[in-house]
Amino acid sequence: MDLQAYLQERKKRIDEALETYLPEIEGPAAQAVRAMRYSLFAGGKRLRPILCLAGAEAVGSDGDPVLPVACALELIHTYSLIHDDLPVMDDDDLRRGKPTSHKVFGDAMALLAGDGLLTEAFRLMVRQDRPGRTSPPVLLNVIGLIAEAAGYGGMVGGQVVDIQSEGQDVDMSTVEFIHTHKTGALIRASVVSGAMLGDGNRSQVEALTVYGRSIGLAFQIADDILDIVGDTETLGKTAGMDQKKRKITYPSLVGLDRSRDIQENLVQQAVAALKIFDDRAAPLHEIARFIIGRTA
Amino acid sequence: MDLQAYLQERKKRIDEALETYLPEIEGPAAQAVRAMRYSLFAGGKRLRPILCLAGAEAVGSDGDPVLPVACALELIHTYSLIHDDLPVMDDDDLRRGKPTSHKVFGDAMALLAGDGLLTEAFRLMVRQDRPGRTSPPVLLNVIGLIAEAAGYGGMVGGQVVDIQSEGQDVDMSTVEFIHTHKTGALIRASVVSGAMLGDGNRSQVEALTVYGRSIGLAFQIADDILDIVGDTETLGKTAGMDQKKRKITYPSLVGLDRSRDIQENLVQQAVAALKIFDDRAAPLHEIARFIIGRTA
Repeated sequence: MDLQAYLQERKKRIDEALETYLPEIEGPAAQAVRAMRYSLFAGGKRLRPILCLAGAEAVGSDGDPVLPVACALELIHTYSLIHDDLPVMDDDDLRRGKPTSHKVFGDAMALLAGDGLLTEAFRLMVRQDRPGRTSPPVLLNVIGLIAEAAGYGGMVGGQVVDIQSEGQDVDMSTVEFIHTHKTGALIRASVVSGAMLGDGNRSQVEALTVYGRSIGLAFQIADDILDIVGDTETLGKTAGMDQKKRKITYPSLVGLDRSRDIQENLVQQAVAALKIFDDRAAPLHEIARFIIGRTA
Repeated sequence: MDLQAYLQERKKRIDEALETYLPEIEGPAAQAVRAMRYSLFAGGKRLRPILCLAGAEAVGSDGDPVLPVACALELIHTYSLIHDDLPVMDDDDLRRGKPTSHKVFGDAMALLAGDGLLTEAFRLMVRQDRPGRTSPPVLLNVIGLIAEAAGYGGMVGGQVVDIQSEGQDVDMSTVEFIHTHKTGALIRASVVSGAMLGDGNRSQVEALTVYGRSIGLAFQIADDILDIVGDTETLGKTAGMDQKKRKITYPSLVGLDRSRDIQENLVQQAVAALKIFDDRAAPLHEIARFIIGRTA
């Protein structure tokens, strides 16, 4: 299959849906939506929504009823980037080659844009505006899964440990905790929620949980590596920041070569988990490979 | 009825449920939960959860199946206070007589504690651990209602306009927008979600929407007035901050007497909306009166 064409088509579908779900508004709160949209449409790859659609496809759904939840995942991801870039956090000026939210709108508005996106994500999830509606009890389970992955048991928990670890001597298990929680949890939830919404059976959902966990960690190790070998222009964010902030990463702990080995192992684990699926899981296969081959 | 006894009993029930829903955890992310709990158990009156329970009671439910959503409303309220107190926002050191989150845990952790509480609120809403479960489609509607009230169409929108208005010459309609959105929307959603979860019919839900809108605005005008006539010790937060920050409030626009008249009218509107209910709406009657009589 042509992965690039697949990713492009899916990205287009998601961008169109996002445009429908979060249009500009008029009135006093227009600036809130403007700030939310600025970061939402700043050129994200839409990896999480694509994984959600691909998870649904793998279990035999056409993906359309999944779109609101898929888009909600992108809102959650975007909120986390905005808050992560704030001066009180990583204090980054550049994201995807553009000035970060607080550089454009000020710190207070960026904070609120993040809050708005996170909240809107849950409003989006309960929208049932697509043909082939999801069963409400399944949707409630998916909301619980995503909230857990985004909250203190997932992304927020990873962020907290990341902050506490800055400048500290941390070991491999802490770095793994940060990676699997800060980035991994939402990536895993993306593919698993797609499978649940597509009415996948228990063994399919379990297999995609393994898949999601593996590519989630591989993705973050790729990020660590890119921070060293990439350049600011290609990355769209300032390269070399991990070292500058003395963040402990996979490469800083075990070196580049060993990090690449670990990555390769993770991708093999992910691919192995797909063996119970038929051809409809082909995109998930390709995405697993793509994640460690990416350059930005 | 004895309102104080009622409020005390309900508060106890809610505090116990909150303790069950957000217990301390061990492991790397323990500090995240510690920070979330610090603000959650800092002596809130639990007005929003109590309104949610009272809304359910008014339509004939015993309130118990409503507890997860009622508690979720308190988590959302608490997150908004933490973010609102941050240096990039109102920069307040004192809340409910205790140092604010960022004073205790630092700015980054306070930001994440807020994010964690907002996310956890939605995880809590989908918990169905109480006898007399809610129907999943109704619960999905309630989640949508609360997310809308908390997001850019409600609380976040009100915050954005509040920030944009600081130091500006704003008119009555802008102040009303801020009040009805920043505080009013979630108060309204609290009582309405209770009625929906308690299987109230359409006219009951509509009546409580009117009730909620009126007491929500009355509540915020009471806040404006207390900022002038209250003292820091009784309020548990620094008095006189509105004037210090040149915030336009009801009293600053129309004076104290006229503000009290508007309040009284709002309470009468709220009470009038309750006329279709029987005795089971007595707590809502008393709460409407209590809101403008409060001293903290």
